[in-house]
Amino acid sequence: MRQTSWVAAVGAAVTLMGASAYAEDKPIIHDGEYNYLRAQFGEQWDAQDLEIDGRLAEIYEANGGTPPNILYVLIDDVSFGQMGNRAMNYVTGIDTPNINDFATQGMSLMRMYTEPSCTPTRTAFLTGRQPYRAGVEEVKVALVGEGLAAEEVTIAEILKKVGYNTAHVGKWHQGDIEQAYAHNQGFDWAAFPLHQQVQLSLMTREAMQANNMLGLHSSGQSNQFALDQRFKPYGLVTGIEGEAGGMAREVDLAPGEEWTQAHYVEMNERYQRQTLEQLERLAGEDAPFFMQYWPLYPLNFVYPDQSTSRNGGFMADKLEVIDDWFGEVLAKLDEVGAADNTIVVFMADNGLMYHYEGTSGLSQLIYRGGKTQHLEGGVRTDAFVRWPGVVEPGSAAGDIIHVSDLFTTFARIAGATDHIPRDRVIDGIDQTALLLEGEGNSRRDYVYNYEGLTMRSVVKQEFKMHVAAPGVPGAAAPVFNVYRDPREENPLVGYSLWSGASFQDMIKRHHKMIAKYPHLPLGKGTPYEGIENLRPESLETREVFMSWQ
Amino acid sequence: MRQTSWVAAVGAAVTLMGASAYAEDKPIIHDGEYNYLRAQFGEQWDAQDLEIDGRLAEIYEANGGTPPNILYVLIDDVSFGQMGNRAMNYVTGIDTPNINDFATQGMSLMRMYTEPSCTPTRTAFLTGRQPYRAGVEEVKVALVGEGLAAEEVTIAEILKKVGYNTAHVGKWHQGDIEQAYAHNQGFDWAAFPLHQQVQLSLMTREAMQANNMLGLHSSGQSNQFALDQRFKPYGLVTGIEGEAGGMAREVDLAPGEEWTQAHYVEMNERYQRQTLEQLERLAGEDAPFFMQYWPLYPLNFVYPDQSTSRNGGFMADKLEVIDDWFGEVLAKLDEVGAADNTIVVFMADNGLMYHYEGTSGLSQLIYRGGKTQHLEGGVRTDAFVRWPGVVEPGSAAGDIIHVSDLFTTFARIAGATDHIPRDRVIDGIDQTALLLEGEGNSRRDYVYNYEGLTMRSVVKQEFKMHVAAPGVPGAAAPVFNVYRDPREENPLVGYSLWSGASFQDMIKRHHKMIAKYPHLPLGKGTPYEGIENLRPESLETREVFMSWQ
Repeated sequence: MRQTSWVAAVGAAVTLMGASAYAEDKPIIHDGEYNYLRAQFGEQWDAQDLEIDGRLAEIYEANGGTPPNILYVLIDDVSFGQMGNRAMNYVTGIDTPNINDFATQGMSLMRMYTEPSCTPTRTAFLTGRQPYRAGVEEVKVALVGEGLAAEEVTIAEILKKVGYNTAHVGKWHQGDIEQAYAHNQGFDWAAFPLHQQVQLSLMTREAMQANNMLGLHSSGQSNQFALDQRFKPYGLVTGIEGEAGGMAREVDLAPGEEWTQAHYVEMNERYQRQTLEQLERLAGEDAPFFMQYWPLYPLNFVYPDQSTSRNGGFMADKLEVIDDWFGEVLAKLDEVGAADNTIVVFMADNGLMYHYEGTSGLSQLIYRGGKTQHLEGGVRTDAFVRWPGVVEPGSAAGDIIHVSDLFTTFARIAGATDHIPRDRVIDGIDQTALLLEGEGNSRRDYVYNYEGLTMRSVVKQEFKMHVAAPGVPGAAAPVFNVYRDPREENPLVGYSLWSGASFQDMIKRHHKMIAKYPHLPLGKGTPYEGIENLRPESLETREVFMSWQ
Repeated sequence: MRQTSWVAAVGAAVTLMGASAYAEDKPIIHDGEYNYLRAQFGEQWDAQDLEIDGRLAEIYEANGGTPPNILYVLIDDVSFGQMGNRAMNYVTGIDTPNINDFATQGMSLMRMYTEPSCTPTRTAFLTGRQPYRAGVEEVKVALVGEGLAAEEVTIAEILKKVGYNTAHVGKWHQGDIEQAYAHNQGFDWAAFPLHQQVQLSLMTREAMQANNMLGLHSSGQSNQFALDQRFKPYGLVTGIEGEAGGMAREVDLAPGEEWTQAHYVEMNERYQRQTLEQLERLAGEDAPFFMQYWPLYPLNFVYPDQSTSRNGGFMADKLEVIDDWFGEVLAKLDEVGAADNTIVVFMADNGLMYHYEGTSGLSQLIYRGGKTQHLEGGVRTDAFVRWPGVVEPGSAAGDIIHVSDLFTTFARIAGATDHIPRDRVIDGIDQTALLLEGEGNSRRDYVYNYEGLTMRSVVKQEFKMHVAAPGVPGAAAPVFNVYRDPREENPLVGYSLWSGASFQDMIKRHHKMIAKYPHLPLGKGTPYEGIENLRPESLETREVFMSWQ
């Protein structure tokens, strides 16, 4: 493992003062809409930034001269409102006491926008860029030979520049090529599955027997729908571990072994265990840490023999497990004495996987839609941030924030703003003012919602325009008021006539910036390179994949 | 005003001991399903009731030998989840800080079922009987010559038997015939409109100009749809006041005056003022009080010139008004020294009036449907009960409770169970154990949901069967799990095959009890009798109505 000496690197922290995006000769390149806001509020923000710099310097000083640790817990596919909200425990029969408590200990970010799927949200957080700028869409279940390009600069890489130790545990979902692996993208140490839950939980014999999968396995009694016979899901690489600059190792399966639901459960339990181990290790180092814990749960596709929640759905049960585990993580932070100086952010990556509504036990709640969709139900998630002594306990903010903002905000708090690249658009806005000063201090009132590489809607304040279908005039695009109509079912025709032009202008500004700073290409390569113990069946699976490349 | 001397009546309180439904020779007649539960849990309940009697006796003693005051605040048409829940303030841009605070001071009844409309819910509370048993459906906007029958026994009549002073302020909606008036149904003093918000807020020139009403008024520029020309909504009686045994007086309109939105606003403000006055008066009396405050808001059908909430919808703004006013009511209770000995229940009467979604600013949230519908969105409402020193602050219960249960529970707490009639079915279950002992102590796990006189669904625990259409076999009736599928969109086919028979049995038991104790007739009569100052236009409007009777 690469050991970073905080003492050697601490000099970087002196760049903190005046490190905000516009205090430098070369400002961070934000989207056009941000510059409209800056033209209105820039002076006010600059004055506020000076105060914030002073406040951060005090925080460092109180902490022996180092910035705080950061723990980012990102769970998978849960509807907005489900967590941190007592009422919802009664609505759905899923108890989340630890998350509910946690929500009272810091700030609830009540209008956090993500991307609508796992891969894009994670890319947006890691790079501070909406994923289409890096050619990133949702990474499919099987081999793709694609992934996050080495040219993208991740928050882990940036924080390492100022001396942070970095670790990643759990879901990664940034591709199956070597350059995209977590330990090659800024993490000193990483343990993650190379693919995602569709392979790990759905492509099992048990899921087939639970009628959640067809044609996977020859054991099916009525297997009319056969996948490509050459496709062997148990040839896919499962969990790997690696260290920065080193080879990865597959850790879950022996050659010839078949992946089962039990393996999936064990993998999840292992990631929880490793998270606790890593926190203990990192807290003992002589440097601040940045750690990601990205559990695979609650996604899961098989009924347990005996349900454990009142709800009983196969994802609902796992959400209760996540709640228990998150309680353990917080207890571990206390135990190792790191709780007071660690920023903890807990959130979901996007709305629920509504395709399994009913049986999964998770449902669309207040907002319509879910994973894969630009509707509020797809891109709004519960998000909570705790920073003892800094973020007001029990506070909440209705301000708009986007997951990419965490990138820029974490960099600012760590004194690493100078290391954010200045040659590409950074969507993430520095929201340190929101965390420190509370509601009303967001520096963003807009979001562009994409599905894959296609813009589907534009949010400005409480208004949201659904982009008209190709060839349809913009005046026909419906505009919704998400306060009055959270389910986006009653377009305000009158509003769209006066607001339509403004939204079209927003889209033009956005496209102008894309023309000036074109999208970068997605990383490409041969899957599974850089793994030292590839199983024979993985080699065979890769051969099948390469045969049509 | 009839003055009840508590000192004279206090002897009634000795009937408290052993006054629960089954300790008497003549038990309360409950529905068949309750008896199934009683067969399972009766012994346990009887033992618990002895303890509860002891606890109530202690409460009386600590209060100078009298039972507590009861204040029942019932507001109009709000979706479950909207109130007492911080998250929702951010979702809809409607701030309800007073209601949110109040929710933390007592128990949140997270699974309160009402009837799906205003009149039925109010009848169910007043009589402890589901309204079809009294022939009651939603009372229409104009003249009906119908209303709550004198033979029905209201909670006010029962509480008066043990010495309570009673008052009603605000919406009543139990019909336009003399026997149905609040001051003829157990209230010593009452101030209420004789009709409801469709007349009072929607049948105005302003609502027509806001495009929420057609054909009402000759002032319309494009009035193609004309109502019956003889129908003059401004001939309808507006607000009246009365005392028990006396004549009512109309108080809002002079002859020849036209009702406007300003009148509606003034009426609401008057009810708020009168509520504060009545609380002050009642707290000074030598007897406990039972008071109903049933605001007409947030129902309202006209945009204000300037919206006052972030949401800006014409009902959303009024919900913020209600929140302010409820804060004033609680402050008044403190001021007059009654807060510690007053049970305060705050809730909505049914789900939102979804027909105005979008423009009203109120929306379907977690549950689907609204007013008039048997779906959870129609019959689930936020409900909170505060009873200092007795009900655990910050507690919540996911147990099923029905609005009719408040009737039986209030009677029990007041020591008035003996005065509940024993010649008819009482749907309301005594839920004192739930209030005193907390979650898990409800004595009901079922609800029959009616729309008007038609059963539409049956709830048992987390399952809900939608009754099959007439002539369709029961096996085709869809069954939902409301935990896993709160929007009732994914019927569990497998479940309905095994549970269908159980639900059919529940329906049979219910109908057997109806056969044994047939429904009582709705009250009938000539509208507007017993009003001493009927305006000439009201007499004319009544003549038009009587001409087709």
